[in-house]
Amino acid sequence: MNTELPAAAGIDFIREAIRGMKAYQLEPAEAGDKLDQNESPFDIPAEVKREVLERVMNRSWNRYPDFELRELRGALAKASGTALSNVLVGNGSNELLFTTIATFVSEGREVIFPSPTFPLYDKLVTICGGTPREVMLDPASGLLPVNEMIAIAARSSEPPLFIVCSPNNPTGGVLRPGDLDRLLATGGMVVLDRAYGEFSSAPPPSLHERLVTLSTLSKAWGLAGLRIGWLLSTEEICWEIRKVKLPYSLNIFSEQAALAMLERRELMERNVEAIIKERERMRYALEEMEGVDTFPGEANFIAFRVARGARVVFELLLVRGILVRDVSSYPAMNNALRVSVGTSEENDRFLEALQGILSGGEQ
Amino acid sequence: MNTELPAAAGIDFIREAIRGMKAYQLEPAEAGDKLDQNESPFDIPAEVKREVLERVMNRSWNRYPDFELRELRGALAKASGTALSNVLVGNGSNELLFTTIATFVSEGREVIFPSPTFPLYDKLVTICGGTPREVMLDPASGLLPVNEMIAIAARSSEPPLFIVCSPNNPTGGVLRPGDLDRLLATGGMVVLDRAYGEFSSAPPPSLHERLVTLSTLSKAWGLAGLRIGWLLSTEEICWEIRKVKLPYSLNIFSEQAALAMLERRELMERNVEAIIKERERMRYALEEMEGVDTFPGEANFIAFRVARGARVVFELLLVRGILVRDVSSYPAMNNALRVSVGTSEENDRFLEALQGILSGGEQ
Repeated sequence: MNTELPAAAGIDFIREAIRGMKAYQLEPAEAGDKLDQNESPFDIPAEVKREVLERVMNRSWNRYPDFELRELRGALAKASGTALSNVLVGNGSNELLFTTIATFVSEGREVIFPSPTFPLYDKLVTICGGTPREVMLDPASGLLPVNEMIAIAARSSEPPLFIVCSPNNPTGGVLRPGDLDRLLATGGMVVLDRAYGEFSSAPPPSLHERLVTLSTLSKAWGLAGLRIGWLLSTEEICWEIRKVKLPYSLNIFSEQAALAMLERRELMERNVEAIIKERERMRYALEEMEGVDTFPGEANFIAFRVARGARVVFELLLVRGILVRDVSSYPAMNNALRVSVGTSEENDRFLEALQGILSGGEQ
Repeated sequence: MNTELPAAAGIDFIREAIRGMKAYQLEPAEAGDKLDQNESPFDIPAEVKREVLERVMNRSWNRYPDFELRELRGALAKASGTALSNVLVGNGSNELLFTTIATFVSEGREVIFPSPTFPLYDKLVTICGGTPREVMLDPASGLLPVNEMIAIAARSSEPPLFIVCSPNNPTGGVLRPGDLDRLLATGGMVVLDRAYGEFSSAPPPSLHERLVTLSTLSKAWGLAGLRIGWLLSTEEICWEIRKVKLPYSLNIFSEQAALAMLERRELMERNVEAIIKERERMRYALEEMEGVDTFPGEANFIAFRVARGARVVFELLLVRGILVRDVSSYPAMNNALRVSVGTSEENDRFLEALQGILSGGEQ
């Protein structure tokens, strides 16, 4: 080994922007009722799993996946009424988000998005050297701060680049009809994250030359463990994003599972219907509770504020085997928790436990 | 919809650096003998596949994978004689390469690597705003241009950042014993891509505070279809790279397949032994052919030069059902092709076809 003293330590090679960042962490917690990650409470039916596994059994695992993923992209194009060249598929919508941001954002590029929202936007814009411009929203409004985003864009010297998650995580708020057109009317580019889109009343938007729409099979489609995301845009924009995208990012198993589920759209629709029904039942029950305020939202979760310290309520729920997400450290979310819509039984246990905790009867 | 004329067209939002890039493309070609992607010719045994699929059948597909991937990282730590905190796992080593480069490289950062090499280094450095400094190698030497890389580093004003693929794709050349220490002795950071490491005589390097080592299960381990890569470095560097890494990048199926194969290291070793034996047999046969020169190398492929136009030879092989890679457009690789080591039968067919083409007896 070299005996010279090196000029720089290993850590000195890390970019300043990265050293200043916090790592994305998840508190490890085990619970019988897992209502913290906005997963679907419904697993894939055993017979569908078996069909997928059989298809995978007959594939050569030592061979790379199809470079073009034509079959899956074709199925998504068909499902969305677009063409193959409008569709990209990735390893979860996270990968496509990274790829899209890296396509648009270099050193100093301003990116406008609401706050609080999915923390990955801020992280990825920072990694790409961009400047996040967070626009505060009021979670009690159930809306996204479109007027404020447009006002900030008007003061900028470059055409605006917006990221919008609608329904928004972790608040649940949505774009109103016409809001997307208003953002586009600024002449800006919009990256629309529809991770929770299937749970909202808003239909998927049409293609637009300045719109990139991200979707996922992790939520409504119940495939969080398989990491499948997809992106819709014009052929021209897709071509550019593809240059940045890593090849072979979807494995042969996830590809087959996605195909099998897309063939069974009615399964997804039935699950979404059940989740929305449960969400409204939960919202009603939460609103009935003394000291609880829910934030209006159209996702597969409910964010709500408790009068008493959110952290204590979180811990007391966990003791009762119910894991929710403590979102009280997000901006404008003091004393707020987020609960995913689970099965009826899970939701009953959650509501009963919360009622017990808030009435202080049982500790 | 908005009727104003937008100030900018969609394409105007794409970064200059991206617009200037070419898309990574793969010519679609079907062939009985697929010797173009350096895949393992050996599929996973059916009983191992069945075991993996059974484990996957019992998992909840609607739940996210383990955030920490402790089981798989633990198995890789054990296999490499390191600790959990030294290991990161990703969706193929491509993902970890992107993540690592994004951790080190921002606008204007110079990155030194040999040429020709794996095209993804140039692409990712460019995407991250860095400046690729390619150092020409002589494929006939079987080596990497370490002296020249050090000389270029000495003229730079910042501590050097090197990327080295050893054995190198597409030439096969390697670092000699002591070369890695010489690169580290410059005080620089080294990203060592050991995608083909199992096929070479060089042992895996020890941890070093300025070394990041990338490995993959796609080549020697025969799991190209599952996209599993891993990274070794110090705890400190891993912590920083983790900040950039997307969470949940490995799906539940690939995780189980990786675990099952790591439990069967002897399978991998047996396959590697067979591939090396075949490689040397092929090299001998190629060298015997009039008008063929092989480049020395220690990977699971052989790069070779033909006297006659490489493109014609490529096409004539394809007509005979044999797909190799035309690498003749790489720098210093004029008239060169690259053939993956296949099964004995595949290699026989390849050698016979090439001999026939070169002797001109059959067109």
